[in-house]
Amino acid sequence: MGSALKIEALEFARGANVSVLATGSGAKRVNARVMQIVKVDDDFTVWYSTYGASDKISELKNDPRTCVIMSNYKVMTDLRFHGTTEIITDQKTKDRLWQDEWTRYYPKGKTDPNYTILKFTPGEVEFRNMNKYGMEAKKLK
Amino acid sequence: MGSALKIEALEFARGANVSVLATGSGAKRVNARVMQIVKVDDDFTVWYSTYGASDKISELKNDPRTCVIMSNYKVMTDLRFHGTTEIITDQKTKDRLWQDEWTRYYPKGKTDPNYTILKFTPGEVEFRNMNKYGMEAKKLK
Repeated sequence: MGSALKIEALEFARGANVSVLATGSGAKRVNARVMQIVKVDDDFTVWYSTYGASDKISELKNDPRTCVIMSNYKVMTDLRFHGTTEIITDQKTKDRLWQDEWTRYYPKGKTDPNYTILKFTPGEVEFRNMNKYGMEAKKLK
Repeated sequence: MGSALKIEALEFARGANVSVLATGSGAKRVNARVMQIVKVDDDFTVWYSTYGASDKISELKNDPRTCVIMSNYKVMTDLRFHGTTEIITDQKTKDRLWQDEWTRYYPKGKTDPNYTILKFTPGEVEFRNMNKYGMEAKKLK
């Protein structure tokens, strides 16, 4: 992986704020939703928080394979990831990622039973900056 | 469908420029990509152009069920559609939607065999404007 390109892609991911997380397989229809990004690790692991009773939880239990898109039309740049998403309920991780403003979603705070973490681990990372590199995506992983 | 809300959602869709189109089912993994929007009809039918040899074409032949997301983080607004996508190769439709700048993708112009139209017909439309209406999406269809 070209490390200058990796740094560029990582900066883009960390500035993205939101992503689209697509799930669904088997007999089920495909589904997707906009999700706020909590954290992006150096290896492009993406962390989200979600409500425990949401559709995506049952979809991920059925099939953890996920596609994640981060994009910014203004700079003609996007990232596409294929990987798997784990549902994390471990309190240590929940404490580590907790943000105080989330009490509006989880009134009981970091121990609220509905507060759930999703950990997306990418197997493939494709980065596209159309202004700089044209239509073709660069495979980073 | 509340018509004021429908107009608001339609304006948002027509200003979105791009969307994420998610495909894939059966044994296949879920896939998604950023796509430029060509046109949005009054009933939220969405028109795209695509290269005939792309992955999405084979995915859509396998299962036409599709989820489309349009979102703008700055205004905390998004649209989610569930529906089906048809692959259109009819020359009349291709002529009608053709844009001259596309010769960079399809050098032979509107009769280029790789120039293909996708027509997405939504069965469900969910509109969310978090600043105005909170976290809950409004079902428009």
